[in-house]
Amino acid sequence: MQITGQQLADILEGRLVGDPDVLVSEPCKIEDGKPGGITFLANTKYEAYIYDTKASVVMVSEDFVPDKKVKATLIYVSNVYASLSTLLGKFNTKISLHEGIASTAVIDVTAKIDAGASIDDYVIIKPGVSIGKNSKIYGHVFIGDHVTVGENVRIFPGVRIYHNCVIGNNCVIHANTVIGSDGFGFAPVNEGQYDKIPQTGNVVIEDDVEVGSNTVIDRATLGSTIICKGVKLDNLIQIGHNVVVGSNTVIAAQTGVAGSTRIGSNCLIGGQVGFKGHIDIADGTMIQAQSGVSNSIRHKETKLYGSPAIEFQNYLKSYVYFKNFPDIVQQIRNLELEVNRLKLVSDNMK
Amino acid sequence: MQITGQQLADILEGRLVGDPDVLVSEPCKIEDGKPGGITFLANTKYEAYIYDTKASVVMVSEDFVPDKKVKATLIYVSNVYASLSTLLGKFNTKISLHEGIASTAVIDVTAKIDAGASIDDYVIIKPGVSIGKNSKIYGHVFIGDHVTVGENVRIFPGVRIYHNCVIGNNCVIHANTVIGSDGFGFAPVNEGQYDKIPQTGNVVIEDDVEVGSNTVIDRATLGSTIICKGVKLDNLIQIGHNVVVGSNTVIAAQTGVAGSTRIGSNCLIGGQVGFKGHIDIADGTMIQAQSGVSNSIRHKETKLYGSPAIEFQNYLKSYVYFKNFPDIVQQIRNLELEVNRLKLVSDNMK
Amino acid sequence: MQITGQQLADILEGRLVGDPDVLVSEPCKIEDGKPGGITFLANTKYEAYIYDTKASVVMVSEDFVPDKKVKATLIYVSNVYASLSTLLGKFNTKISLHEGIASTAVIDVTAKIDAGASIDDYVIIKPGVSIGKNSKIYGHVFIGDHVTVGENVRIFPGVRIYHNCVIGNNCVIHANTVIGSDGFGFAPVNEGQYDKIPQTGNVVIEDDVEVGSNTVIDRATLGSTIICKGVKLDNLIQIGHNVVVGSNTVIAAQTGVAGSTRIGSNCLIGGQVGFKGHIDIADGTMIQAQSGVSNSIRHKETKLYGSPAIEFQNYLKSYVYFKNFPDIVQQIRNLELEVNRLKLVSDNMK
Repeated sequence: MQITGQQLADILEGRLVGDPDVLVSEPCKIEDGKPGGITFLANTKYEAYIYDTKASVVMVSEDFVPDKKVKATLIYVSNVYASLSTLLGKFNTKISLHEGIASTAVIDVTAKIDAGASIDDYVIIKPGVSIGKNSKIYGHVFIGDHVTVGENVRIFPGVRIYHNCVIGNNCVIHANTVIGSDGFGFAPVNEGQYDKIPQTGNVVIEDDVEVGSNTVIDRATLGSTIICKGVKLDNLIQIGHNVVVGSNTVIAAQTGVAGSTRIGSNCLIGGQVGFKGHIDIADGTMIQAQSGVSNSIRHKETKLYGSPAIEFQNYLKSYVYFKNFPDIVQQIRNLELEVNRLKLVSDNMK
Repeated sequence: MQITGQQLADILEGRLVGDPDVLVSEPCKIEDGKPGGITFLANTKYEAYIYDTKASVVMVSEDFVPDKKVKATLIYVSNVYASLSTLLGKFNTKISLHEGIASTAVIDVTAKIDAGASIDDYVIIKPGVSIGKNSKIYGHVFIGDHVTVGENVRIFPGVRIYHNCVIGNNCVIHANTVIGSDGFGFAPVNEGQYDKIPQTGNVVIEDDVEVGSNTVIDRATLGSTIICKGVKLDNLIQIGHNVVVGSNTVIAAQTGVAGSTRIGSNCLIGGQVGFKGHIDIADGTMIQAQSGVSNSIRHKETKLYGSPAIEFQNYLKSYVYFKNFPDIVQQIRNLELEVNRLKLVSDNMK
Repeated sequence: MQITGQQLADILEGRLVGDPDVLVSEPCKIEDGKPGGITFLANTKYEAYIYDTKASVVMVSEDFVPDKKVKATLIYVSNVYASLSTLLGKFNTKISLHEGIASTAVIDVTAKIDAGASIDDYVIIKPGVSIGKNSKIYGHVFIGDHVTVGENVRIFPGVRIYHNCVIGNNCVIHANTVIGSDGFGFAPVNEGQYDKIPQTGNVVIEDDVEVGSNTVIDRATLGSTIICKGVKLDNLIQIGHNVVVGSNTVIAAQTGVAGSTRIGSNCLIGGQVGFKGHIDIADGTMIQAQSGVSNSIRHKETKLYGSPAIEFQNYLKSYVYFKNFPDIVQQIRNLELEVNRLKLVSDNMK
């Protein structure tokens, strides 16, 4: 794709300063700019790069005032990140797949595939499945019995969806993620052995959810594990049985949520966080990476850190002292010496 | 499936109080009960729900005495959790698969597939493999050369088993788990580079083991990585080369065990725990989530917490002081002031 | 494979003491030795085993002097571990795959597959892909549009490579790993919702890289996520968008690196470590398992531990005091009592 600077400025509803006819063929980073590239300056930390970049066009904020001469053509926009997103969407390439249904897909006759959906090679679709309009099912995907997939969904290669799960509209599920495998439930029986508790529930993923690669969302023992509207899950996340993740909550990679925990809406959860089972987390909770959350959080917008997690600022304060622990212990020893000396003096005075 | 309350009571060997002819069609949670639902009350924390639930039938413990009138039909049983497990098994649905061998499965002529086994679409089975009676191999599974799979095993979509591994009877392996990939062994050579140490061993999974989704169990460098009888592994777990996990040990999600570590029998290991390599963990050890175990544990039934892990109660005690560290430091400062004042007084007295 | 002790000694350029005609058929561990087995003694901790092992041959270091009579035939070598590696390579078995291209592989007509490459069953290869000489693509692998795979590469079952990614020569990628899925980038919009930032970059994996199973390496938003020459990544690792991992760095299982972080060369990184985004880690940094690295590390060969990570020895020192925190608090209380007593004496004296 090639496009002129002026055409881009029109698309971005921006104001061009420089060469309106300059040709742009790909987005690039400001520090790795090359002719034909379009890049952006949003964080003033990177301002130095704009004077030297070899990129042909740079998007800048309306209030940007250059200190020196800029060689590149500039496009002034009101929100650089929003414009960047629009721009990247323009240049985005995708994995191709068969229009319609690939001849190698194995689809049960009772499955309902919308005429506008695409099913790629070696997909397996079991009885009673329904796939909505414009949804794209990439190669090697497995969809179990009676799963419902909404409209405009993209399911990437190797995703496995167990029976009876529900995927809403506009969802994206990345490669090799597993949805609806059995929750981890075993009842102790004789002599230290365990019996499996059948997991008869399902997983419900509401609209506008994105799930990363190699993530696992277990089915409920009874009822549903629920990922609410607008949630974003990163890679390698573990969601236990009967968990509820509230709408628009964002969870970074490698975090794990144990069974029956309910996470509120609009939470921001770092990577490698662990949640105990059967707790409730208030809306808007922010949790630092690697924290271990072992109690319910009742107040909205609490910030947490530590394992077990405590209030964020308190953890940081305590950790400063932890780092200075040898000095603190030395202070205590010095005090002991001083006190012993005073005692001697005092005893002598008696 | 529809069944009457009395039929259920007979199956569960329980005593029915209420309407023996009430029809039940699905299990449900007590707080989300609906007509036709059967639910249970095991934890008295949930007792309030039993008086309002819309479920048609509730299983309760023999010693349950209602405070108020209960509308639902009750089935009194001796062990609510055991009865629940029986009940869920009755209502459990499964992913369907081909009876016998799907025509799209690619099976080497030297593989021995028991006549009672089922092999679904797009399974690949390499030379010398053997699959036992009643085992079910779901779609997209890959089984490498000379792998042995026992009887009554279920291997879910996308599982990869490398060559020479052994899977016992009655095992369940969930989707996209990898068994027998190379252990992480590299020998430093010149200039900071590494040479791969070939991994010539295998993985042996004994009978009655369940493994979650997206878990990895690496093959041994020499000999076998061994998952003993009755072990339960959750999702996204890492088991390094030459590890041994003792019988009936339960490990929660995202835990990692480094190479050559031996974990005893009947251990209970939380999520996101890390084990150093080449250590021995005694039988019955209980380890809190997110702990880091860096030394062998010699005493049975030790409880651990922390990174590095120490005795559970000791960690909690120390952590209480950690949380109060700013106050403790303030106490020390106050003491210093006091001691300085006393010194002045004392010096003045000399 | 069967081979005599003398033939092995010749291969290993070692000196045989014992029976040159003894037959060896498999490598084994010294403590589990059996007739026909060859094993090794490298760590003197295991020396006791050499006098009793049933293995037929033991490789030992040139400076090994037995305390007692050894029944096994010995091969003296200059570097036991290097010889072990050679030996294991000799006995290593592999997963078999189709010579050339399996008839069930779905390969776009525009893909260029070298005549010496092997493509196994049910592989999907999209338009514009190129696969180099002697590369082996195992069953169920998915390779997206315009991916380049070098020479002598092995890609194990179920690996997913998204469009435009580049894999160098001599790389090994283990089962179910995902390369090039979307970076985790979302821009907040109205009412707590998020818009996806298109991820238009790719992943570049340089030569001689090994990647474990179920690992995820996300594509860059712009530009490339780069895994440099000679890097070794274990299983279940998360590499965020625009990360750079420097040459010959080794990362253990379940570690996560957030977006845009740059890790230097020759680093040694333990398991379950977390890296914050947008930081720089100096060459040769060594990081203890489970650490959380939240700041750039400027000095080479720094050793780190803790969450947030601090200098390794300092963490250990502070942790010793943490473990003794109850005693330390008791010391402070004792001091307070003593000071109060002194104050009383002092006040009485006034």
